Amino acid sequence: MTLNDADALFAAHLDSLLPKAVLRPVEPRYLAEPRGRWNGRAGVLALPRNAEEVAVLVRAASAWRVPVLPYGGGTGLVGGQIMPEGPAPLVISLERMNRIRAVYPSENVLVAEAGCILADIRAAAADAGRLFPLSLAAEGSCRIGGNLATNAGGVNVLRYGNTRDLCLGLEAVLPSGQIWHGLSRLRKDNTGYDLRNLLIGSEGTLGIITAAALKLSPVPASIGTAMLAVSSPQAALDLLALAREQVGEAVSAFELIHRQGLDFLTEVLPQVRQPFHTTPEWCILIELGLSGGADAGEALERLFETGNEAGLVEDGVIARSEGQRNALWTVREHLPEANRLIGSVSSHDVSLPLSAIPDFIHRAAEAIAGIGPFRINNFGHLGDGNLHYNVFPPKGRSRAEFSEMADPVKRAVHDIVHDLGGSVSAEHGIGRLKTDDLVRYGDPVKLVAMRAIKAAIDPCGIMNPGAVLVPDQRGGAG
Amino acid sequence: MTLNDADALFAAHLDSLLPKAVLRPVEPRYLAEPRGRWNGRAGVLALPRNAEEVAVLVRAASAWRVPVLPYGGGTGLVGGQIMPEGPAPLVISLERMNRIRAVYPSENVLVAEAGCILADIRAAAADAGRLFPLSLAAEGSCRIGGNLATNAGGVNVLRYGNTRDLCLGLEAVLPSGQIWHGLSRLRKDNTGYDLRNLLIGSEGTLGIITAAALKLSPVPASIGTAMLAVSSPQAALDLLALAREQVGEAVSAFELIHRQGLDFLTEVLPQVRQPFHTTPEWCILIELGLSGGADAGEALERLFETGNEAGLVEDGVIARSEGQRNALWTVREHLPEANRLIGSVSSHDVSLPLSAIPDFIHRAAEAIAGIGPFRINNFGHLGDGNLHYNVFPPKGRSRAEFSEMADPVKRAVHDIVHDLGGSVSAEHGIGRLKTDDLVRYGDPVKLVAMRAIKAAIDPCGIMNPGAVLVPDQRGGAG
Repeated sequence: MTLNDADALFAAHLDSLLPKAVLRPVEPRYLAEPRGRWNGRAGVLALPRNAEEVAVLVRAASAWRVPVLPYGGGTGLVGGQIMPEGPAPLVISLERMNRIRAVYPSENVLVAEAGCILADIRAAAADAGRLFPLSLAAEGSCRIGGNLATNAGGVNVLRYGNTRDLCLGLEAVLPSGQIWHGLSRLRKDNTGYDLRNLLIGSEGTLGIITAAALKLSPVPASIGTAMLAVSSPQAALDLLALAREQVGEAVSAFELIHRQGLDFLTEVLPQVRQPFHTTPEWCILIELGLSGGADAGEALERLFETGNEAGLVEDGVIARSEGQRNALWTVREHLPEANRLIGSVSSHDVSLPLSAIPDFIHRAAEAIAGIGPFRINNFGHLGDGNLHYNVFPPKGRSRAEFSEMADPVKRAVHDIVHDLGGSVSAEHGIGRLKTDDLVRYGDPVKLVAMRAIKAAIDPCGIMNPGAVLVPDQRGGAG
Repeated sequence: MTLNDADALFAAHLDSLLPKAVLRPVEPRYLAEPRGRWNGRAGVLALPRNAEEVAVLVRAASAWRVPVLPYGGGTGLVGGQIMPEGPAPLVISLERMNRIRAVYPSENVLVAEAGCILADIRAAAADAGRLFPLSLAAEGSCRIGGNLATNAGGVNVLRYGNTRDLCLGLEAVLPSGQIWHGLSRLRKDNTGYDLRNLLIGSEGTLGIITAAALKLSPVPASIGTAMLAVSSPQAALDLLALAREQVGEAVSAFELIHRQGLDFLTEVLPQVRQPFHTTPEWCILIELGLSGGADAGEALERLFETGNEAGLVEDGVIARSEGQRNALWTVREHLPEANRLIGSVSSHDVSLPLSAIPDFIHRAAEAIAGIGPFRINNFGHLGDGNLHYNVFPPKGRSRAEFSEMADPVKRAVHDIVHDLGGSVSAEHGIGRLKTDDLVRYGDPVKLVAMRAIKAAIDPCGIMNPGAVLVPDQRGGAG
């Protein structure tokens, strides 16, 4: 179906339907994305204040066959928030819908509008003596609507699940321009198909989330953090199993770090203090959050001792203060920035069945060595099987020299991931970056079902066209 | 769309496509359901052994426009497993697909075929030193495919979630007769729409689940169970909040019991030993599962003491042995049987926002007293906001005398639930019992989306027709 530009005539039409301040001049920040891969286009920018205004915008776009691009914090890494080609879209930024509508501490529920910044939601939960566990590098600028649209992951998935698992209900505007009032605070509700989870992770291609009822958790009474040197990725996995034997679900985070990442910090961010005298080949960052009078520091001591006896842990630092905790997390959180400063040839957000990880690391390193003299920084959320597997040029050389090898590297990594039953997009989504990967590696029956659902919910194809699903050559929905 | 009987000609056609033992004579047990509300019809009964045979059956049904009724353990309480009218269906029972395909203890994953009995899955997990937490009254006969199709709940949802939350991946046959190979063991996989959660809870109307990758959990090291008399439902909620402050997520179960339920036990199941000398108006059954060297018995003592000081808990029994634990659970588990023996006028599976529960209990009791001289047994999974709110005739009189009041009672209860933001089907689903309720109380925009999805995935309407969605008068999908 052919779509039309959001042109001046369309803007004038919207202007007649909405209060003055809703339409705004398009600023450059709405046309850029963090990795600078694409330059976006926009015909009209709208900043609605409520679901009704979003509905007016979508109904008009539907009638005029104008593409709609929902915009959250703009921090997505796969280009879901950018339309570099095709008709100029109506960009709908949810940023003015940034109200926490209600907090129900006794129910462990918080209702937030889609434009709330994640850190603000975490702070509101903390003010109520609760934890909103979604936590990721961009939390100071990403917005919950985008987190939901992409089913964001982060460092606490191991214990608390993905964004999907933290959502009880949604309010959303469907492509028809109708508002679904689904802001349920219920833990159990078996009344019909799971529209909530269909919208979550659909990256703005099935509708616009305008508000969400979110699950809160108790704040663990005792939090402990350690960075432990392990002898291998398998040892790290064994240590995770040991930790779970000892403290159950209380393992909140379990992050793998390779020496390459720490060397990158030394190279480009020397101000970040590192915990080890001798940089280990592999280490993990573990965080425990215990309740019931237990002491997380003691639990980490016990884990270190038993892990050491079992030959899994060689060295380590257990934080003794909030300052030391922050220092350990600072190391972890600066790894992506160091990566950006070095400049990767190809970066991958993959997940694997836990037991396949050592095999993956071995096979991928071999395959990449066969392509070129690369440095590999492999780190990530090991507890979830989620690795950020990034490939860099040798020291002193630039990524530009290796740009032709980017595709072969990506293909080699993704082929091995797929062969081992893994995913080529663990937590970042498909966006525009991985539409080809979805076709290549996705289950064909699932793809047919996805196209049928897209055509059913968005028959004119106005919602974020070009993201997730590209038009089927054989004539399916786009 | 008109469907055809699964007649002798169709049976002969299937016979030519499949090994002999797949088609079986229709036995009466496939045509009954636990509450005896309906008598089912069946043209052909098939017991396939694998997804390929299911696919052959569904493709044939699709070509012949014959309705398909997926059949699990037959324990559903809303008639989703029974077709009392319309063309005689092809019943596909998954009971021969009862193999545990694999257990991955290091990944906390188990892969089971849809016909596995829930108790067998729990036992296989226990054999591997893990917990599969889904637990409900029918676990000795219900099958995991049915649990998934209905997103079953049970007593451990508070801590571990619904069946939906315990599933990582599915293998399923879609209405086209194609097999979706989605048996992912991944914790993070953001590659496209959430087809898994769309099938889960769709009650066989969007496809047939043939196998699932299920999440296992660590077995808590120390389990403690207590039955505590509380002064009111609000006190019960306050006690739950207190328990979570003290032990975090380690509250595995939190069940509300009203005196009426215990009186029913005395009346019709006197062999069930009750823990209290003086039967309290309200009591709760709490179970804690702790790790990390903590002692659940001590934690319960502490909860009792602080709850008593706060005026929430008046009396109580903390189990001192496995035998005592079982005795407390025996009380809880016999409540439904006592209800059946007494015979309810109307029974309701509702959920509410936690903070609305005291108001609901008050308003519903008042409304019912205005209809007739009923006895109310209100019990259930309080931690999830899920009440089994059942209404009985006065002592010595039969339900038959009050059959004309069943609808007004149901309507009164469901109206109040809806008014308070609750759900009229918390954990049992819609099936054929609650299709009218779904239309009455469901969000109309969600209903339109559900019909569009049904038409997109099952364009011929062969999958469990009449369940969940009834044909729209205005001409939607059924």
